[in-house]
Amino acid sequence: MKQSFSDISLNTNGEGFTNITSNIESWISQMRFDTGILLLSIKHTSCSLLINENADPRVLDDLSRFMKAIVPEEGIPRIFPNERRQPYNHAEEGPDDMPAHIRTALTATSIGLSIEKRTIVLGSWQGVYLWEHRYSNHVRKVRLHAIGDFS
Amino acid sequence: MKQSFSDISLNTNGEGFTNITSNIESWISQMRFDTGILLLSIKHTSCSLLINENADPRVLDDLSRFMKAIVPEEGIPRIFPNERRQPYNHAEEGPDDMPAHIRTALTATSIGLSIEKRTIVLGSWQGVYLWEHRYSNHVRKVRLHAIGDFS
Amino acid sequence: MKQSFSDISLNTNGEGFTNITSNIESWISQMRFDTGILLLSIKHTSCSLLINENADPRVLDDLSRFMKAIVPEEGIPRIFPNERRQPYNHAEEGPDDMPAHIRTALTATSIGLSIEKRTIVLGSWQGVYLWEHRYSNHVRKVRLHAIGDFS
Repeated sequence: MKQSFSDISLNTNGEGFTNITSNIESWISQMRFDTGILLLSIKHTSCSLLINENADPRVLDDLSRFMKAIVPEEGIPRIFPNERRQPYNHAEEGPDDMPAHIRTALTATSIGLSIEKRTIVLGSWQGVYLWEHRYSNHVRKVRLHAIGDFS
Repeated sequence: MKQSFSDISLNTNGEGFTNITSNIESWISQMRFDTGILLLSIKHTSCSLLINENADPRVLDDLSRFMKAIVPEEGIPRIFPNERRQPYNHAEEGPDDMPAHIRTALTATSIGLSIEKRTIVLGSWQGVYLWEHRYSNHVRKVRLHAIGDFS
Repeated sequence: MKQSFSDISLNTNGEGFTNITSNIESWISQMRFDTGILLLSIKHTSCSLLINENADPRVLDDLSRFMKAIVPEEGIPRIFPNERRQPYNHAEEGPDDMPAHIRTALTATSIGLSIEKRTIVLGSWQGVYLWEHRYSNHVRKVRLHAIGDFS
């Protein structure tokens, strides 16, 4: 049993999803990591890691529309009719910044993957995604830390 | 230090919760896994893993009612009064499918457990649940991957 | 490769955030844990673990206000205009208890951290927080389980 770790960099192109399944499997192959646990950790507070459907792209579109509705740019949602609408107080970094922190808190920033025979053990319809919550392009770093058997 | 892994299958009975704590502890016992980290990963995109209260069943009922309210079948929620209500675009697989993907994104698909003396280290009121988000019955697979000391 | 584990206790002071980054790093140093994976698990069902921004405290305030709005004490949110407002059925333990269970379900109860040279691998703006969802003070236990190289 050994370990190996490094960061991988990914370019995002505004709010939305980047399928990173093959990026992770390339890293696994390069490290000669055969079987074990691989921990993914995002090094940012305004994007997330997500495992969700890899087939119909409208699933990802609907996820994105849902998240924008429930964590709106305009401020804290009014759930009950007579509530006052409240703006965010953390507003200096742009209207998409505080919603991005909240969307990150509601999703995952660290995910464990089971690796067998150099492959991520996933269901047929699962892909691993980086979910960018900011509106401009970013370079995002994901930490990969593997513990298990290498060849 | 060694590792061991396999899938376990679970039958769900429509939307709701299945307590899988004893299923996991049976697997631990069968594998003679004494102490280490156990990673659980769900191999589906419309059900989740959850650690929550194991005592009053109304906690789980309220969780379920909350999730149905916040991720409704009818489409993307209108948070602000004058917004237009938007249907989901991914609709072919039934009215419960897209909400199930969103509910999965808002909860956990991979959970790490600390195992000591063949027991999951949990608080007194914690149970490990499979949360089915679809309305019909399903067979669900959970991957278990253990790293640590075996006897 | 070895392992080490124990619980740490933390005092919370009502709903809000406690930065536990340095508590975890003290434990790492005391255990002489150099490099590996550290699993954090919360042993309660009404508080969470969170990795989010460590700079502007208004980010945490906005997170807290958002969570109170979306998971209100008053009962299940009405998303569509003509819905009936529904109280929680699990109400005996106080008006903040059921919302706390839901807020826990929407956030993380187990987080994996990559450790290198006795330091948590985090981005510049990331801190690790215990998020208390109850309104009174509590003593909270977090399980730490490390697998990797010790010195």
